[in-house]
Amino acid sequence: MSYTWNIPTKVLFGPGKLGTLHKEAAPGKKALIVISNGKSVKTNGSLDKLLGELQQWGVDHVIFNKIQANPLEPTIQEGVEFGQQNQCDFVIGLGGGSVMDSAKVIASMIPQKGGRVWDYVAMGSGGKKPQTEPALPFIAITTSAGTGSEVDAGGVVTNPVTNEKTAFFGKMPVLAIVDPELMLTVPPKFTAFQGFDAFFHNAEGYISKGCNEAGEMVELTAIKKLAHYLPIAVADGSNLDARTQVAFANTLGGYSMDVSTCTSEHSLEHALSAYHQELPHGAGLIMLSLAYFATFIEKHACDDRFIDMARAMGVIDANKPEDFLTALKAMQEACGVADLKMSDYGITPDEFPKMAKNARDSMGPLFLFDPAELSDEDIIHIYQASYR
Amino acid sequence: MSYTWNIPTKVLFGPGKLGTLHKEAAPGKKALIVISNGKSVKTNGSLDKLLGELQQWGVDHVIFNKIQANPLEPTIQEGVEFGQQNQCDFVIGLGGGSVMDSAKVIASMIPQKGGRVWDYVAMGSGGKKPQTEPALPFIAITTSAGTGSEVDAGGVVTNPVTNEKTAFFGKMPVLAIVDPELMLTVPPKFTAFQGFDAFFHNAEGYISKGCNEAGEMVELTAIKKLAHYLPIAVADGSNLDARTQVAFANTLGGYSMDVSTCTSEHSLEHALSAYHQELPHGAGLIMLSLAYFATFIEKHACDDRFIDMARAMGVIDANKPEDFLTALKAMQEACGVADLKMSDYGITPDEFPKMAKNARDSMGPLFLFDPAELSDEDIIHIYQASYR
Ligand SMILES: [Zn+2]
Ligand SMILES: [Zn+2]
Repeated sequence: MSYTWNIPTKVLFGPGKLGTLHKEAAPGKKALIVISNGKSVKTNGSLDKLLGELQQWGVDHVIFNKIQANPLEPTIQEGVEFGQQNQCDFVIGLGGGSVMDSAKVIASMIPQKGGRVWDYVAMGSGGKKPQTEPALPFIAITTSAGTGSEVDAGGVVTNPVTNEKTAFFGKMPVLAIVDPELMLTVPPKFTAFQGFDAFFHNAEGYISKGCNEAGEMVELTAIKKLAHYLPIAVADGSNLDARTQVAFANTLGGYSMDVSTCTSEHSLEHALSAYHQELPHGAGLIMLSLAYFATFIEKHACDDRFIDMARAMGVIDANKPEDFLTALKAMQEACGVADLKMSDYGITPDEFPKMAKNARDSMGPLFLFDPAELSDEDIIHIYQASYR
Repeated sequence: MSYTWNIPTKVLFGPGKLGTLHKEAAPGKKALIVISNGKSVKTNGSLDKLLGELQQWGVDHVIFNKIQANPLEPTIQEGVEFGQQNQCDFVIGLGGGSVMDSAKVIASMIPQKGGRVWDYVAMGSGGKKPQTEPALPFIAITTSAGTGSEVDAGGVVTNPVTNEKTAFFGKMPVLAIVDPELMLTVPPKFTAFQGFDAFFHNAEGYISKGCNEAGEMVELTAIKKLAHYLPIAVADGSNLDARTQVAFANTLGGYSMDVSTCTSEHSLEHALSAYHQELPHGAGLIMLSLAYFATFIEKHACDDRFIDMARAMGVIDANKPEDFLTALKAMQEACGVADLKMSDYGITPDEFPKMAKNARDSMGPLFLFDPAELSDEDIIHIYQASYR
C-alpha cells in the first residue's frame, strides 16, 4: 500500500454552511463570482446568500454568468479576460461541476502572462504550456452533488473546434463549501445524473490500478451511501438528510479522484459529450456503465472488487462479480434512469469509431489505470452495446 | 451531519517513502532536525536516510537530540532557542509522537517575539498568549504508529513544575512521511502501546459528541484495521504488511482528532503520566480503557456506537454494547498488554483524587465531548477500578 494524499482544501460541510462563509478570512478584496448561464442560483436564493456573505466581508465583486454545461474553452477564456479587466484578486465558483471547473481554470489563468486557456491544457491537442504564475485563491461552492470538483484540481474544458473534452490542471480550491440546502431544488432527473457521476468516480476509483487503502475507504463509503440514499433523494428532493448523504458521497468522489484515479469510462463519456454538448455528463456515464463494467467482468479483471462493491450496495451475500451489474441496474431503475437512450441526444452508431479514437486521443491517460487493457474493438463494442 | 475538514498536510504514505523526500520542494535552506534523546533513529538508519535526503536537497542542518518521552516544557524551550541561535528556517521532526509534537511546537515558537513555550499553552495554567508570527514550515516523519501527530496541529507539553500535561496548538505539518519501514524495529511492547493509542483516538472519536460521518468513516476503518493487524504486528514486528496497516490506522487516528475529537480518556491518562513521566501514554490508556468505556456503557450513553465498534473489531453478530468490552479485552490479550499494572509505574491509589482534579484542570475541554457527563466520583471510580 502506498499513496499520496495532497488535498489542502478546507471543507465546510453541512446544511447552512454557506451562511458561515463570512467567518472565514476573506482571501482578497475583489471577487470574481462565476455562475452558470442558467437561472437556478438566482431563483433559488443561493446567489443572494453568497452576496450577503461578501457584504459582511466588505469585499467588492463582479459576476461572470456565461458558463454552459460541458463548458467551452472560448467561454472560459472570456471569463479569464473579464476577471483580468476587473482586476479581481480571488475567484468564487457557485454552481455545479461545470461552473466550479470553469472557475478553477479562470483562477489559474487570470495571473498567467500570455496565451489562452487551450494553450495551457495538458492533454490532447492542448498547448501544454506551463503555468508560471501562482493561481488566484479559489473558493468552490457546490450547488450539485456530483463531480466532487470542490476538492480536486482538475477542470474539464471542451474545445468546440477539435471536439475535445479534456482536462486543465489547476490548483485545489483554498476553501470548499458543501451545503446540501443549496441542492434542495435540483430536479429529480439531474439529481440522478449527478449522483451517478459521483457513484462512477468512486466505482472507477475502486477498480482502478491506482487504488489504495485510502481510496478504498472513501470509495466503499461513498458507494454504500449512494446506493441507499440516491434513490431517496431522487424520489423526494426535499429530504435534507438524503441530500446530505449524497453530497457527502459526492465530496468523497473528489477525494477518490485525488488519491486514486478515474478509469476510461470517463474517457468514453467525454467523447460522447464532446460531440453532443447537450448530453449531461452523468447521463452519458449511466448509458455506458453496464456494458463498460461488464467488459472487465468478462475479462475477470478484478472479480473481488466487483463483489466488494455489490456488498457495499446492499447485496450482503454477493459472491460473483455479476452481482455488481445486477445491483447497478436495480439502482438505475430505482432512480428512474434505466431507460436513457443515446438516440434521444442525436447520437448515431456511425460515430462510434470516431468517438473511440477521440476517447484515446483526448483522455488517453485514464486507460492506463483500467484493471485490464481495452482494445479499440472493446471500446466500440461498449458503445454499441450501450446504444438504444 | 456537519463537519469541517481542514487538513492541509500533504501525506506521503508507504514503505520506502522517506527515500522520496528529496523529490518534494525543500521548504527552506537550513533545517532544525528534532530527534529523541534515545538511540533508535541513529541505530536503525532512519537519521542517516534523512540526512541523505537533505544532502540531495543541498540544504544545511543542525540536530537537536534531547526530546524525552512525555516531553517537558524546558526541553522544548531549549529546542526553540537552539533553532533560533542556529537561524533555522524550517523544522523536521523525526521520531514518535513526543518528537513530532515537540518539533511542531518548536516550529511555531521559533519566530515568536518574547515569552517561552508555556506562555503560549492554551489550556490549564498556560499563558494563552497568541502566536503573532507565522510558524516555520514543519515536516513530520513518524517512526511509530500511534499518535497521528503527523496530521494534526496539537503538541502535548508537560510542565514539570505544575504537573500539567496539556496541549499547545501549533500549525499542521506542511508534509508528513508515514513510512512503515521506519517502524520495523519498534519493540513489541511499544508497538502495542502505540497501536492502542491509535485505537483509542479512533474509538474516543467514534463515541464523542463531536463525531460526524467523515469521522465515522476514518474511525471505523481504523478500528477494523487495528483489531486485525495490531496483534500480528506485535507478534512479528518484521511483518511489513501488518506494520503498514497499523501505520495507516494511526494516520486515520490523526484525522479523527482533526475532524471529531478525543474524549476524556485522554484527560485521565494525561493526569497519570503528568505525575509519572515514565508511564508511556499508550500504556496508561490501556490501563484505563475497560473501566472508562464500561462507565459509558453503564450509562447507556451510546449503545449503538459500541455495537458498531464491536462489529468492526470482528464480532460480526455483536448486539449489545458489552460486546465491545469483550472484544477490547481479547485484543489486549492478543497484544500481550492485558496485565499492565499501575503499581509497576509507582502509581498509588491515594493519588487518584489529585489526578481527577488534574484531568479537569489541564484537559477540561475534552470532557465536553464525552457521550455522557462524568462526575468526579465517576473519574475516581475509573482510576480505582483500573488499579492493579
Ligand atoms: Zn465525472
Ligand atoms: Zn493519544
